[in-house]
Parts: sequence; C-alpha cells; structure tokens
Amino acid sequence: MTASLVATAVPADSRQRAKQFVLTLQDEICSTLEALDGQAQFQEDLWQRPGGGEGRTRVIRDGRVFEQGGVNFSEVWGETLPPSILTQRPEAAGHGFYATGTSMVLHPRSPYVPTVHLNYRYFEAGPIWWFGGGVDLTPYYPFAEDVVHFHRTIQQACDAHHPQYYPAFKRWCDEYFYLKHRQEARGVGGIFFDYQDQRGNLYAGHNHDGEAARYSHNVGAVERTWEDLFAFAQSCGQSFLPAYVPIVEARQDLAYGEREREFQLYRRGRYVEFNLVYDRGTIFGLQTNGRSESILMSLPPRVRWEYGYQPEPGSPEAGLTEIFLQPQDWVNWRV
Amino acid sequence: MTASLVATAVPADSRQRAKQFVLTLQDEICSTLEALDGQAQFQEDLWQRPGGGEGRTRVIRDGRVFEQGGVNFSEVWGETLPPSILTQRPEAAGHGFYATGTSMVLHPRSPYVPTVHLNYRYFEAGPIWWFGGGVDLTPYYPFAEDVVHFHRTIQQACDAHHPQYYPAFKRWCDEYFYLKHRQEARGVGGIFFDYQDQRGNLYAGHNHDGEAARYSHNVGAVERTWEDLFAFAQSCGQSFLPAYVPIVEARQDLAYGEREREFQLYRRGRYVEFNLVYDRGTIFGLQTNGRSESILMSLPPRVRWEYGYQPEPGSPEAGLTEIFLQPQDWVNWRV
Repeated sequence: MTASLVATAVPADSRQRAKQFVLTLQDEICSTLEALDGQAQFQEDLWQRPGGGEGRTRVIRDGRVFEQGGVNFSEVWGETLPPSILTQRPEAAGHGFYATGTSMVLHPRSPYVPTVHLNYRYFEAGPIWWFGGGVDLTPYYPFAEDVVHFHRTIQQACDAHHPQYYPAFKRWCDEYFYLKHRQEARGVGGIFFDYQDQRGNLYAGHNHDGEAARYSHNVGAVERTWEDLFAFAQSCGQSFLPAYVPIVEARQDLAYGEREREFQLYRRGRYVEFNLVYDRGTIFGLQTNGRSESILMSLPPRVRWEYGYQPEPGSPEAGLTEIFLQPQDWVNWRV
Repeated sequence: MTASLVATAVPADSRQRAKQFVLTLQDEICSTLEALDGQAQFQEDLWQRPGGGEGRTRVIRDGRVFEQGGVNFSEVWGETLPPSILTQRPEAAGHGFYATGTSMVLHPRSPYVPTVHLNYRYFEAGPIWWFGGGVDLTPYYPFAEDVVHFHRTIQQACDAHHPQYYPAFKRWCDEYFYLKHRQEARGVGGIFFDYQDQRGNLYAGHNHDGEAARYSHNVGAVERTWEDLFAFAQSCGQSFLPAYVPIVEARQDLAYGEREREFQLYRRGRYVEFNLVYDRGTIFGLQTNGRSESILMSLPPRVRWEYGYQPEPGSPEAGLTEIFLQPQDWVNWRV
C-alpha cells in the first residue's frame, strides 16, 4: 500500500466516530451553557428526515444569560448531494452521501455578551470524504480583549495541527461572513473551512458568489490523513467553550440600558440579513424543504430595523462598525 | 401604418408621463397617509444613483397609525439590464434601459391594521417597453370583510380595462408572494403583473425559481396600446387609497393587548423571510450595490422569531394561517 493510498483511506468506523464527536460536542456545549445560564434549560426536539436521517434540535429560551439559543445535531443520508456541493466535489456525482454535524447559534440577552455561531460537519460521498465547519463571534460592543481571547484560543487549537490552519481559515471566515450590501463583516470572525480532506489543499473554493477565489493555500509536503483531520476538527470543537465562556463570565453582569439594548436589536438585523441573504446553508435548506424551524433557529428572538441609522461619531457603536466589523489581525492586536 | 405598428408605438413623451404618474402617486399616497396618521410626517431623502438616475425616499416613523412606512420613487437608466430581466426580454439585450417606479411598504402599529405593499414601474429598453407592479395586503388578524373590500376595489380598477386582468394578476400575486419553506402565502394577496406590453400576453413568466409557469393567459383579439396599459396602471395606482384607507379607519381604534402585539411581531418575521429569501427585487438590489437603506425600508421596525410556535387551535391566530394564508377567491367570499 503506498503512502497516498494510506492517506486517502478512511477507517471502517469513520461515520460512527464522526457522529459520536458531534453528538458529544452538542452534549458538552449544552450542559456547560445550561450551568452558565443557571436559569433556563435546553428543550429537545427529535426529528426524522423523510429522505433519510434524523436530528436532535435543542433550544434554550428566556434564560438569565441566553435570550435564545439553539444547538442542532443531525445525521442525514441520501442518493445525491445538492448541485452546489457537486460543483466543488464532482467526484461525488453518482454516489450516495452521508453527512453528520452540529450547529449552534447563541443570542445572549445582554448587549455586552457577543452572539456566537459554531458548526462542525463531516461528509462522505462515494470515493471522497471531508470535514468542514468553524466558529465565529458577533459582538455588539467593542471589547478588544474579548475578541483577542477568542481568536487566540482558536489559534492555539489550530496551531497544534498545522501552522497554516489558523491564518487560512481565519481569512476564509472573514470572506464568508461578509455582508456585501453593507460593506461590513457579520462580526469579528473566527475560523471557517470546508472540503478538508487528504489533499492538503486548505482553501477549496470561494464563498462569495460570482467572485474568483482571492487566495489559495496548499500545505504542500504535509500529507494529512483522515485521523489528522478528525483530530483537528475535535480540537476546534473542544476549543469553543474555553474561547467563549470566559467572555460571557466577564460581561454578563455589566449593567446596560435602553441605548445598548436598542443597538443590540438593531445589529441583530444584520445577523438576519446575513443568514437569509448570504448563508448558503440556510438558503439551500429553506429551498429544499429542510426543517424550517431548525434552520431558522439561528435567527435572533427580537430584532429591529431603523432606516438611515448612523451611530454617533466617536461612540462605542461607531467603533464597532468602523474597527470591529472590518477584518483585523486579532491575535496580534494590542490590548 | 399598420395596426400592429400603431400598437407597438410609444408616445414621444412616454418616459415623462410614466415618471409623472409614479411621482404624483407617491405624492398623493404620502399626503393622504400623513392626514390619516395625524401625528407623524414623511421625512424625505433625495439620492443620486452613480450609474445614472435619482430617487426620492420618504419614510414615516413612530406615527399614531404607522409604526414605520416608506414610499420610494426612483428614475434610473443605464447601459444594460440585469440578466434576470434579459432572460425574460431578450430583445432588450445590447440596449440601454430606462426605468421609473414607486414602491411602498407600510407597517402599522396596531396588529388589527394590515401591512400593505405597492409597486408600480415602467421600463423602456431599445425596441421594447413594459409596465409592471401590483399591490398586496398582509393582515395579522383575520377580518374577512377587510380582505373582500381590498380585493373588490382592485378588481373594479382592473375590470374597467379588461375582464381577464384581475383573475390573471390575482393568481400571479398569489404565486409570487408565497413562502415555499413555510407553505403559506405572505398575506392575502392582491394583484401582481410584469412585462405588460402590446403583445396581449398577460402572464409573461413564472416567479417561483425553477418552476415552469403553471398557467398562461392571452387576451387574444384584444390589441393593447401603450395608452391602454398606461391607463390601466394609473387605475391600479389610484385604487390603492380607496382599497386600503377604509380598512385603517375601521380597525385603527380597536383595543389590543400584548398577545396581539406579540403575534404581529412574530408574523412580521415572515415578511422579513419573504423579502430576504424570495423577493427578487430585494435580493437583486442588495447584490448589485443598490441603495441598501431604500431597499430594506420594506423590513418591519420590530420583529421577533419564536422556535416551534403553534397558534392555539380555533384561535384567530390559527384562522389567519389556516384560511387567510392560503389562496382564496376573495371577491366571492361570503362575509
């Protein structure tokens, strides 16, 4: 058996292990967040997918910390992947597929606690397989030290596997979570990756419709195995709670007023705009009769829009947009 | 000159007359709504389009009747129409275009007063021209007599021009303002039409992506002129205030409580979902660097989402979804 065949191979229990990873991650996240909240508990909905598969949707509401949040698990299979994926991975055409993953969005009550999104997923389709996912933070008020902590924690998880992972996937995240019509990022980013397999090609496709990939990294001599990438995905998943929980703890008790609450509701409008206009998973799910309630669990509980809003120059609200919603080198930011 | 050439001809002052029609309609609507509200006034923003053209955005906020509303006028021109329009009208390829129109969305404060949307527009591109637009109602509580009044008023305006206009354009409206992922209409409809020119083809294309047109009407022997269609568009525009104002007057003073307000905020979420996921004008505008604030003026001021919400069986809230958000033959409804 040559080295490259070894690298391509998946273990016999790959699906079971990937599923167990995302299921366990969902469990760990939910139990820690419940303890952190101290008031609300996750309510669970189990569901079946008519085309094959099932899911476990967990929603927390009206908590002390979390106004609303959802953590989803799903394991699905079917005869054919959607065209948008087959374009990226034509080798999967004509094959059935298997996918399992967990996704999460938390909308805290306090405007000082950032919204956060996480998603890790694993695909198999005929001869190929890949890992995808990421985590990104959307603060409402500009606390630089929170953002630096978040990025450094994720960077450490990445660096344990390859020094190019964090810079490549941080940039991919900045590019993906971008509202073109507002010319601003959804938040301060984190990491995002997709189509990670043994090929060593870190950046497998660009996510802005109609634009060519702006960059591409290749790890070259590094030959990655399924085990390498599974370990990497696990490290990413496990870095979420240490990246996020300290931010909640630092900000949850800060007093805020109507001004901050109204700004939070206004900024949540951008979250809705991103998820409904740009997020391909959301749009694809809605247009292909996915479970709407689980897909739209990512939307904030209360939102407002205001025509022509402009933050006062020099205010924290202006600082958020001008500095935090443009891509920054957060791990080297001086706090 | 043959009859068919006469029918194709546009008057020398077509653009000026179409522009004057939509400008005047904007003025009439704004002054009547201000008088009806009695508290808030429209604030006007004039803007220039870098590629050619200008607009007049008017927004009313925090009124007695209207929590938020916008009435837009625009007149734009450019070198080429977007691909989505050229697919429908290939004769316009290689020609510059001219477009003028008015669009409006009103979000009343009371859950008993329906949200309403209106849009009338006129296009010229090389050898061709057309009228488009419509008006549709989105109630939160099921008052059948309001819906019947709205539809009958519009029907009368249509019937004065052709007996097939109302049935064809009512159905087009039902098909267009439909949330596939919720399997429900955005509201109770009204009329919607596009690409109306001298050809007599009432239904020029289906608006659900990827689905073939389910029906097509042709007025056959009726040869329509530019003047015929301009008169029809004017009748439609002028029917808006008589269709909507009496509903406001009938419902504006009804007392409501938190339950009704919360249901209104919840249903407004569907309005956001439709506008951001399905409305081609909104999506196209956002993705092509339109004026975001004017495009998103259509979004409600305050909105909420609730995971897994189900109205109580037999309640007015259930009645809205079960009966009013499915296509109905409103003009023949027994009230």
